[in-house]
Amino acid sequence: MALCISDPAVKRLPMYYRYLKEIEKKGIDSISSADLGKLTGLTASQVRQDINIYGGKGRQGYGYPVIELRKHIEHLLGVDHPHTMMVVGMGSLGCAIVRCASFKKKGFVTVAAFDNDEKRIGISLDELTIQNVDELARFLKSERVDIAVLSTPADVVQELAERIYRCGVRGFWNYAPIDLQLPEDAAVVNVHLDESLEVLTYRLNHLD
Amino acid sequence: MALCISDPAVKRLPMYYRYLKEIEKKGIDSISSADLGKLTGLTASQVRQDINIYGGKGRQGYGYPVIELRKHIEHLLGVDHPHTMMVVGMGSLGCAIVRCASFKKKGFVTVAAFDNDEKRIGISLDELTIQNVDELARFLKSERVDIAVLSTPADVVQELAERIYRCGVRGFWNYAPIDLQLPEDAAVVNVHLDESLEVLTYRLNHLD
Repeated sequence: MALCISDPAVKRLPMYYRYLKEIEKKGIDSISSADLGKLTGLTASQVRQDINIYGGKGRQGYGYPVIELRKHIEHLLGVDHPHTMMVVGMGSLGCAIVRCASFKKKGFVTVAAFDNDEKRIGISLDELTIQNVDELARFLKSERVDIAVLSTPADVVQELAERIYRCGVRGFWNYAPIDLQLPEDAAVVNVHLDESLEVLTYRLNHLD
Repeated sequence: MALCISDPAVKRLPMYYRYLKEIEKKGIDSISSADLGKLTGLTASQVRQDINIYGGKGRQGYGYPVIELRKHIEHLLGVDHPHTMMVVGMGSLGCAIVRCASFKKKGFVTVAAFDNDEKRIGISLDELTIQNVDELARFLKSERVDIAVLSTPADVVQELAERIYRCGVRGFWNYAPIDLQLPEDAAVVNVHLDESLEVLTYRLNHLD
């Protein structure tokens, strides 16, 4: 796929995907850029520009074919096929991620959970048993994992991520409050929940 | 404060705040826009533009005074004073949020937790007891809550948010996979964890 999509436009992809699924569920066949703009809070011109960049096609006087565009974006996002995940750091957040039903429903299958805390190792969680993080490299020799979910303290996460990278994993969903530095052939999303809360307090403290 | 800061620039504020705290911890007094750019992954010119918009001041040949700028951004973000939160929807994610130590450390104090499930109501979690969501309005008559954290299923969250808004709460940190629609005098951040995972699969599936 030779598309070059800017980072802000990539970040809007999942939103289009979500709204298109909703519209499809309502049995609507086609939607105009104006109506899609109203739903997403964007201008019609921004919607047309985005979908053009995504390589989606509309028809004059008809709009965008909903199912076709949804499938196109699904394929772009790579969520038309399942992904395997492993979670490292089984505190409350790590456990919540393993238990999250909506990830499973979307094809994200957690195949392993790791921790370094003796009190957690061996505990069963859904169909998984928490393993010792020292077993990680051995596990990755025999199992293919697409995404490492990192919910460890900040001071260990960079070294851990590098270790996992060397075992061949290329997707990193990082919840520790630092920006991971990995080679260019790794895909990283740093979630930074604290910072999303700070954006909220900014807005809250600047309400008119 | 009469500053008008665009949404993308607001979203970068917490990142500057995080790096400035790190630099301060290392005992560094001042930092140039070029060095701050290297840390944050932005160009020096973008850094200068952002900090100018934020109303921060640097000095020619000296750079930005680290402590002063950190305090300035802290004040802008509104995190120089504590905020109270309540969590509604006490599944795994709601529990993880209540237990998250880093929120507490940053002055986000969870004062109540609610659910509608009989099996969860009455359970103790840290120093809180999960209350019946029907008690919400009564609770908010006597307690001031800055931020409602919503970790409920998508189909109930909009009605619930409106109910909480009518009780006077103005900050909404929404984890349900819809975009909340609230009056303009409410501050909303929709977290969309699923979508952050989809951005990751996009990047993973488009690695060179």
